[in-house]
Amino acid sequence: MQSPRPDHNACRAAIADLQQSLPGLVETGEGICRQHAHTLTWIECQPPDAVVFARSTVDVVEVVRIAARHRVPIIPFGAGTSLEGHVNAPLGGISLDLSRMSEILRVDTGDLDCTVEAGCPRGKLNAYLRDTGLFFPVDPGTEEATIGGMASTRASGTTAVRYGTMRDNVVAVKAVMANGEVIDTASRARKSSAGYDLTRLLVGAEGTLGIITEVTLRLRGVPERVVATVAAFPTLEAACNTTMAAMAMGLGLARIELLDPVVLGAVNAHSGLSLAEVPTLFIEFHGAGAAVEEEAAMFAELADGEGALSLAAAADETERRKLWKARHDALWAVREAWPGRTPLITDVCVPISRLAECVRETEADIEASGLIAPIVGHVGDGNFHAIVMHEPGDPAERGRIAAFSSRLAERAIAMEGTCTGEHGIGQGKMNYLRMELGAGVDVMACIKQALDPDGIFNPGKIISRC
Amino acid sequence: MQSPRPDHNACRAAIADLQQSLPGLVETGEGICRQHAHTLTWIECQPPDAVVFARSTVDVVEVVRIAARHRVPIIPFGAGTSLEGHVNAPLGGISLDLSRMSEILRVDTGDLDCTVEAGCPRGKLNAYLRDTGLFFPVDPGTEEATIGGMASTRASGTTAVRYGTMRDNVVAVKAVMANGEVIDTASRARKSSAGYDLTRLLVGAEGTLGIITEVTLRLRGVPERVVATVAAFPTLEAACNTTMAAMAMGLGLARIELLDPVVLGAVNAHSGLSLAEVPTLFIEFHGAGAAVEEEAAMFAELADGEGALSLAAAADETERRKLWKARHDALWAVREAWPGRTPLITDVCVPISRLAECVRETEADIEASGLIAPIVGHVGDGNFHAIVMHEPGDPAERGRIAAFSSRLAERAIAMEGTCTGEHGIGQGKMNYLRMELGAGVDVMACIKQALDPDGIFNPGKIISRC
Repeated sequence: MQSPRPDHNACRAAIADLQQSLPGLVETGEGICRQHAHTLTWIECQPPDAVVFARSTVDVVEVVRIAARHRVPIIPFGAGTSLEGHVNAPLGGISLDLSRMSEILRVDTGDLDCTVEAGCPRGKLNAYLRDTGLFFPVDPGTEEATIGGMASTRASGTTAVRYGTMRDNVVAVKAVMANGEVIDTASRARKSSAGYDLTRLLVGAEGTLGIITEVTLRLRGVPERVVATVAAFPTLEAACNTTMAAMAMGLGLARIELLDPVVLGAVNAHSGLSLAEVPTLFIEFHGAGAAVEEEAAMFAELADGEGALSLAAAADETERRKLWKARHDALWAVREAWPGRTPLITDVCVPISRLAECVRETEADIEASGLIAPIVGHVGDGNFHAIVMHEPGDPAERGRIAAFSSRLAERAIAMEGTCTGEHGIGQGKMNYLRMELGAGVDVMACIKQALDPDGIFNPGKIISRC
Repeated sequence: MQSPRPDHNACRAAIADLQQSLPGLVETGEGICRQHAHTLTWIECQPPDAVVFARSTVDVVEVVRIAARHRVPIIPFGAGTSLEGHVNAPLGGISLDLSRMSEILRVDTGDLDCTVEAGCPRGKLNAYLRDTGLFFPVDPGTEEATIGGMASTRASGTTAVRYGTMRDNVVAVKAVMANGEVIDTASRARKSSAGYDLTRLLVGAEGTLGIITEVTLRLRGVPERVVATVAAFPTLEAACNTTMAAMAMGLGLARIELLDPVVLGAVNAHSGLSLAEVPTLFIEFHGAGAAVEEEAAMFAELADGEGALSLAAAADETERRKLWKARHDALWAVREAWPGRTPLITDVCVPISRLAECVRETEADIEASGLIAPIVGHVGDGNFHAIVMHEPGDPAERGRIAAFSSRLAERAIAMEGTCTGEHGIGQGKMNYLRMELGAGVDVMACIKQALDPDGIFNPGKIISRC
């Protein structure tokens, strides 16, 4: 396979056209370019040649037409919170910043849906919805993540166990294709059998097939009652077994998050909590009337059966919010605990029946590899992250981390799981994708070739050219 | 665009190869060929040149290789219950009957999933699951519909309002692609961000992109309590308004079905019931403990507010089953009421907030067009069917039906809905697909061209070649 290289002459020509066509919206400063490339994990930062700030779908069409004419890469950019190098520009090109397209275009409280521009941050949408009795449930942690970015990586997070992922909550998208055509992938009907599911094809495509400019989302009613509980366990396995039993019973948990003792230490320090530093589940129940208490009681029975050390409900709304803020800040807490180190965050997801086994083997592997790698997880989905903290000055450790990471992906795949539950493939997991889906990757490459024959959309992510 | 025609020489050569390669599995009798083409609505029956009864994925690969070599169409066949001419062979070719591939390969009660061969009938799966406490919820009415066929048409039915459609309940498929490669589209993990969503691409592709041979499905726990209620209304609009209010409140209805007075007359006659012949909703609540009664009470309040004439719960399980059997037999009841006439079944689906308006305008249109067209609907999804009964000897009526059908699709699309909620495009709705999705259809055509360059998979369905 031919390995393409950046064509800086083409980029310069494209930038000149963009400056003429979209005056005042094109930036080429080194700082701004670096900010628009990957910064969050150990993947190398590969800045684009320019950043364009689109204001509308019409602007995006213009950028696509110019980039297509010069065969220059376009890398869509939302908030830059992705973890697998999705916003890097390995072949140079144009970072297409959608943050100025953040309008909430419509909300329908009867149909329980809304349409937003792709650059709308998740937090902004939920703030806007506050008085409607509705909310958008998908919660990857950060408020800044844009809806377009979340759709593009098929994001999920703590609430997917009940409300599903972006796959389940995107009704339709508007997207600009490589030929400059604008398509709407579906109507607003709750269901449809109208041809190929273009919505689900673009959700999770990481900007490699088209540029999403608007997203229609399913909304939910704010639950009447929300109860949060913290359950402490003697072992990670006991916590996982409790999770497995709760899921097999069909308990409608809204969140069930695992934190290992090391994470809890970091979280206690970062968030001013004093939780016991043992394997712990943060659980949340959503519902109405007595059903929430019934569920919580059933869960408590299961936890007792696994020898839970304690089980305590959050006293009030303030404590509940503090707990979840602490959970969502876990990555920052861990970074703070090892200043100077850089995280590599694994993301396997296995069938729930294999969860305890997978976590146990991974723990043993971390220990044997001599790594610092605390574990957190959205365990109701069978999804967990080892936050592997790397010392940049230690190349030998880097090798050990790469080997561990590869073994973990292999382990999950051997257990009929996936190398990525929610972070996506990006640059970081391309080899594992082949390991997981074999000839399926060739099918993906054919689709990529058909829809983006010149490879202008986010090249070097998910798949190589076919 | 070139309009391809059947190549009978190529077919004869392919059949000879198939007979040699799969002895005893190839049938060419006219009767069996006609049975394997479209029979259920007024679309003309276009039989294939031969039928092959595959026993395994390996057999399917063999059929695909031979058909590809001779560039002969393959039309996958499950139970033949689709309504839009999906199993017709407009260019001749091979009907690939998957009914001998009906094994249930595994059931996992911990992971709440199972894997079946594509030819497994839905009824067989649920019978098999009876002792596990689990069930497969998608219910298009007939027990015979195969899981592969349901996946291929993105089927749904009465329970989609709570449990979703095949889009939501297929975890992964095994499929044979046009080059003979076998792919598994996804792992068994509950969620994944591993590249393009090939599962959702093949679900709803109507056999035009690959042949599904195995399907991994999500299962659910059998609800502790099931309560069925029949609510009678003075007008269709009152019934629709009640549905809209219940959906906007987020009531977790498991089924909510509309039957108009004409359908009720036919159903009473066919199923020995004596329901009032007025617009009626059949509703089902699934849950545990007191929650089911709470929901039913809330629904009753909404129905009262719309002037419901009566509201009665099914007395026992026998009565409940009889009601739903009667609902599912509605098509047969209507056929029986007009012997000699042939049904054309429309399938629009609109955002729930537009439901009453769409049904009201459609009623008026039926009246003005002088058609016999009783209405039933999965109204919780905004999906309803007019069963237009055609007198084959009346070409003028045929013209009026075609015009009505086109206006209905236009009306639904103008209301941000779809021309097909659950039946698919097949041959019958290709024009409406373009009306609904515009340039999106070109994207579908590109994907078709990329994955099936010789057009061997179910040609003449969904889209023309690009």
